Amino acid sequence: MPGNSFGRIFRITTAGESHGPSYVVIVDGVPAGLELSEADLKPDLDRRRPGQSKVTTQRDESDEAEILSGVFEGRTTGTPIAIAIQNRDQRSKDYTEIRDKYRPGHADFAFDAKFGFRDYRGGGRSSARETAVRVAAGAIAKKLLRVRYGTSIVGYVKQVGNVVAEIPDPAAVTLERVEANIVRCPDAAAANRMIELIERVRHEGDSIGGIAEIVGTGVPPGWGEPVFDKLKADLGKAMLSLPAVMGVEYGAGFGVATMKGSESNDAIEMREGRVATRSNRHGGMLGGISSGMPIVLRCAVKPTSSIPREQETVTRAGEPTTIAVKGRHDPCLLPRFVPMAEAMMALTLADHALRHEAGKP
Amino acid sequence: MPGNSFGRIFRITTAGESHGPSYVVIVDGVPAGLELSEADLKPDLDRRRPGQSKVTTQRDESDEAEILSGVFEGRTTGTPIAIAIQNRDQRSKDYTEIRDKYRPGHADFAFDAKFGFRDYRGGGRSSARETAVRVAAGAIAKKLLRVRYGTSIVGYVKQVGNVVAEIPDPAAVTLERVEANIVRCPDAAAANRMIELIERVRHEGDSIGGIAEIVGTGVPPGWGEPVFDKLKADLGKAMLSLPAVMGVEYGAGFGVATMKGSESNDAIEMREGRVATRSNRHGGMLGGISSGMPIVLRCAVKPTSSIPREQETVTRAGEPTTIAVKGRHDPCLLPRFVPMAEAMMALTLADHALRHEAGKP
Amino acid sequence: MPGNSFGRIFRITTAGESHGPSYVVIVDGVPAGLELSEADLKPDLDRRRPGQSKVTTQRDESDEAEILSGVFEGRTTGTPIAIAIQNRDQRSKDYTEIRDKYRPGHADFAFDAKFGFRDYRGGGRSSARETAVRVAAGAIAKKLLRVRYGTSIVGYVKQVGNVVAEIPDPAAVTLERVEANIVRCPDAAAANRMIELIERVRHEGDSIGGIAEIVGTGVPPGWGEPVFDKLKADLGKAMLSLPAVMGVEYGAGFGVATMKGSESNDAIEMREGRVATRSNRHGGMLGGISSGMPIVLRCAVKPTSSIPREQETVTRAGEPTTIAVKGRHDPCLLPRFVPMAEAMMALTLADHALRHEAGKP
Amino acid sequence: MPGNSFGRIFRITTAGESHGPSYVVIVDGVPAGLELSEADLKPDLDRRRPGQSKVTTQRDESDEAEILSGVFEGRTTGTPIAIAIQNRDQRSKDYTEIRDKYRPGHADFAFDAKFGFRDYRGGGRSSARETAVRVAAGAIAKKLLRVRYGTSIVGYVKQVGNVVAEIPDPAAVTLERVEANIVRCPDAAAANRMIELIERVRHEGDSIGGIAEIVGTGVPPGWGEPVFDKLKADLGKAMLSLPAVMGVEYGAGFGVATMKGSESNDAIEMREGRVATRSNRHGGMLGGISSGMPIVLRCAVKPTSSIPREQETVTRAGEPTTIAVKGRHDPCLLPRFVPMAEAMMALTLADHALRHEAGKP
Repeated sequence: MPGNSFGRIFRITTAGESHGPSYVVIVDGVPAGLELSEADLKPDLDRRRPGQSKVTTQRDESDEAEILSGVFEGRTTGTPIAIAIQNRDQRSKDYTEIRDKYRPGHADFAFDAKFGFRDYRGGGRSSARETAVRVAAGAIAKKLLRVRYGTSIVGYVKQVGNVVAEIPDPAAVTLERVEANIVRCPDAAAANRMIELIERVRHEGDSIGGIAEIVGTGVPPGWGEPVFDKLKADLGKAMLSLPAVMGVEYGAGFGVATMKGSESNDAIEMREGRVATRSNRHGGMLGGISSGMPIVLRCAVKPTSSIPREQETVTRAGEPTTIAVKGRHDPCLLPRFVPMAEAMMALTLADHALRHEAGKP
Repeated sequence: MPGNSFGRIFRITTAGESHGPSYVVIVDGVPAGLELSEADLKPDLDRRRPGQSKVTTQRDESDEAEILSGVFEGRTTGTPIAIAIQNRDQRSKDYTEIRDKYRPGHADFAFDAKFGFRDYRGGGRSSARETAVRVAAGAIAKKLLRVRYGTSIVGYVKQVGNVVAEIPDPAAVTLERVEANIVRCPDAAAANRMIELIERVRHEGDSIGGIAEIVGTGVPPGWGEPVFDKLKADLGKAMLSLPAVMGVEYGAGFGVATMKGSESNDAIEMREGRVATRSNRHGGMLGGISSGMPIVLRCAVKPTSSIPREQETVTRAGEPTTIAVKGRHDPCLLPRFVPMAEAMMALTLADHALRHEAGKP
Repeated sequence: MPGNSFGRIFRITTAGESHGPSYVVIVDGVPAGLELSEADLKPDLDRRRPGQSKVTTQRDESDEAEILSGVFEGRTTGTPIAIAIQNRDQRSKDYTEIRDKYRPGHADFAFDAKFGFRDYRGGGRSSARETAVRVAAGAIAKKLLRVRYGTSIVGYVKQVGNVVAEIPDPAAVTLERVEANIVRCPDAAAANRMIELIERVRHEGDSIGGIAEIVGTGVPPGWGEPVFDKLKADLGKAMLSLPAVMGVEYGAGFGVATMKGSESNDAIEMREGRVATRSNRHGGMLGGISSGMPIVLRCAVKPTSSIPREQETVTRAGEPTTIAVKGRHDPCLLPRFVPMAEAMMALTLADHALRHEAGKP
Repeated sequence: MPGNSFGRIFRITTAGESHGPSYVVIVDGVPAGLELSEADLKPDLDRRRPGQSKVTTQRDESDEAEILSGVFEGRTTGTPIAIAIQNRDQRSKDYTEIRDKYRPGHADFAFDAKFGFRDYRGGGRSSARETAVRVAAGAIAKKLLRVRYGTSIVGYVKQVGNVVAEIPDPAAVTLERVEANIVRCPDAAAANRMIELIERVRHEGDSIGGIAEIVGTGVPPGWGEPVFDKLKADLGKAMLSLPAVMGVEYGAGFGVATMKGSESNDAIEMREGRVATRSNRHGGMLGGISSGMPIVLRCAVKPTSSIPREQETVTRAGEPTTIAVKGRHDPCLLPRFVPMAEAMMALTLADHALRHEAGKP
């Protein structure tokens, strides 16, 4: 059954696999009149692209997005926007090994169980390369949020291995500070240690996990629905739909387990004429609805599963064997994960912003 | 815009608020021929109901579910099953205080921002009482999963405050062991300490948070979709759609942040003629698709927001004030959270089980 | 797979069967703040109810709708509105015949093919009695349309058998004129001949078909979507989802088959400062979008399938037999069809009205 | 709000406008393992393409579909299939007239009311050229229906102006007979008169309407849902989502208005061991569920709105004017309408076929 769409009003549908001709996304529900061109998509695609620095994969893919519909005379028309990104790197390599052996940490055998067979080249539909078109669509969502609602989204790397960044105020982090270093951590000292750590694990033929934090500011109170389509629930789904995400938390997150109610509740006060909270342990969402405070959430991202180290596995035929996954893989997913997670938050917020417009009292 | 439905094939829609006449759920998509009566719903409703023990709220509500449609001669007909639970406790109390003051930790002011006004009696649509009909629907999903696929779901309390249970093998925990104590923790020693802790915070006029772990066994490989509707994503949304949940993780969860790939990947092997993994750090899902290993996920549940302690807030008119939330509230949400989370896992798995049937190769 | 919901934003989900305890509808997506009580639902339920006149079935069912949620202090809260209608007439009759024999014109054997078995009492889920909750939900949609957009909907009987009403201006027909006679035809002379015809076929143990025309006025230009969710397409689905409807047309309808473009196109002109068309052969919709002119559509309704005359059929076991369907059935469905069709137009227009609000330029 | 998707399980989403770079369709939900290549799409695209004969528009567009994803080693993988059709004919013409004047019979002013502005080149998103990608997707649906269920779909022209074809048995019409003449009418004598009539109206600078009949054979009983998602309702929506369709009827259609129940009901009998009906006035669907008899429905298609004759209209500024629509337009839409309507029936049946698989008893 189809599972390749996300969103209810600002709604994207993606297609494509890592070694097919092209990725495509159709972005439906974008209001008419938004100024838009390929130039709006490029910055985030460049932040996501492989080969951007020594802490990412060294595959050099420059993802060029082409807008195929929905824009006329420089503005959106209210009709669906199709965007394509060609796969340039379709060299016919030898995929015998990953065709015949199940890679640990990957969906290979689950795919075989589901579909009967699979496109085994480079992950096929499961490849993280699919996020390129999400990032392109997310750039439209970001622009809509900024222009129409004054909402901004910034993400950054909060932790890699045991290196934890100090971020005194998540809502004060700027894109400039995030982009000031190749690991996308606004704490410069921590960033240096993260880079060292990533280079070390790479030399060990290994990979390392971490945590990203994504922050939405300028979100007005009232976005989100009270029951199933809580904003936290849809953001959680958005993040967990990204590859390698093993957990999501917002505000005080798992820290609430050891808190008392008197410690966890945020005192309510008036600020600049609006209801606000003194602290933000609630992470900008109460009862599933935005509170007007910054939305702060974190994703746990596992270490890259594809590592050159030898690992135990079985063949499709069920014979025990070992595998060492070749190719140029990210030693740490976090730096390139940041724009993906920003895109998913943007898509979710844009959808709820438009949902909130329908039937407003 | 409507946000009161969950699921694509096994799909529920709920209505009702804490002090209206009734809660109602319509369960659409249940296959024909399943034996069903109100007796199937009662056990889980009793596990969720208020007043069940000294560690829960002392409000005595016995939730009686009535099946209004979709069952004929003791079997489901394939048509929608409507279930109603009457609200017996509609005493006209004095709600002046919560009508006029915003309760910290609650959605009161976000609701006002969204809808213009709200049903202020006992939380209205935001009340956790809404989960009663989810639990009723979840009981149908559980039965379908058991009868049609051999899948079981068990949840339990893993942590309350600083008390952490020892659970050597999540997949081995039985409902009997969970129900052996009032806190629903299968580690009896930890359970006693949890109970003590909960009673202590209650006497302090406070509340305490914790973590629940939910386990699905007998899930065949192949459920879930590769991209947006990943099983982990839909389970994450399911859990985060429950009140008070601040985070969700599965398998190694946030622990992956400090892991290397060689530590995180589970070795693949054959077991009883099927592909399996030696360990289960992947929590039963790879690439968003079930792997055939037990699904293990955890929810962080915040301490009850409604506490008798005085807290700072403002009135609807924006005047600073204080509030001490009266009424009989749970000092710890975890014991009653367990059946709610089980229900949401059951609903999600039943939906994906049926999704997997459509278009099977 | 579930098929018991209609609409995207103003969305209803129904449950219930003719001889179960209750029908239920959950109306999701109604904006907050609309004044609403059971009194708003009663007039249309009375127009739909059996036993209202000599040209309808003589079963005396007074359908009393109870609002179970979503209304507080006389106004909608923006949360789902559940409405229940109890089935009072659950007498245990002898259903042996319709359990064992397939009724011509009914879905009995298609149901058996689909679900394996069926609730054979009075049509079960296929009973036209299900439309009672649609009419209740439609009354909310009508009120929303009137209050929020100034849109009105009136339907009437255009034809019964060979008796065709003269309606010079569909948009000028009022509810009062429709309700002036029991057959709901605003052409009084035709109405009398229709009543005579219906009485005649009833005495013959037979039934008769006809055509209803439904008109929406005060629909602003711009409702509907350009491609799949054309307003004409969603209205068409709405009407064809009603029992016994064999065809739908709007504007010039099937008459276009013999027209030339120069005869079919409506000249465009300015009227009261707005773009309008001189004639309305386009039926108020162009390219699937409302034009601002009255929406005019017609439904072909087949004669009641349940007739006392003996008809050839087979038993569930496949043996040839005959059946004479007993019970008190409508000799002509049209008079009671009018409020059903109005409800479906109201639900469709309310949905598209709210859809149009989301993302307005 | 998005309205560019169709179907629930076999689900398509389209994008593109007549003078943008490309049309795109994403076909989600196609089961894995179906043999598929561009060659499967070509025959129906050729039947739909402009310039195919003297009775269609003389624009010469050869629509070449490229499959961009979802197919590996000649078979579908169960992941979304993206198909693109480039717009070759993007010559920069002078569109001043249709930019500034509203064309009678077109959605121009409704579009302006909805979106604020529009892509005025050749109809933009409203252009019937959008159906090219529907036809491509429909070819996949047809193949799935044939291979997996033994279901076939054939459409033909039943009427043009006053020329009505004699079709003794709709279910016996073959594709070969339909394609035997350029007007796609299996009654050769009527076909000749239709061709004459079309040529005559073309010379008059006019256009002519007609009726197409679409037939589905080999549909097993049990497809469709009892209430809103009746098969007749979804087929009706499918057809009315095509440009120029003013009405849809199935089986006896509008003819039921003058029938009695004893004339309308089809007698039930056993045939080749299966329940069947002696006649097929019910058009293959009862209670919204397929009966196992051939599905027979008809669409009323209006004469082409774009005609060279001068017509009255207004400018965007509201000034009265006249317009004579230039360009090479179809004098009669029917011959090219047939493959479009077949595609929509195929998409609807494929969707319901897969829906029926989920949750089968």
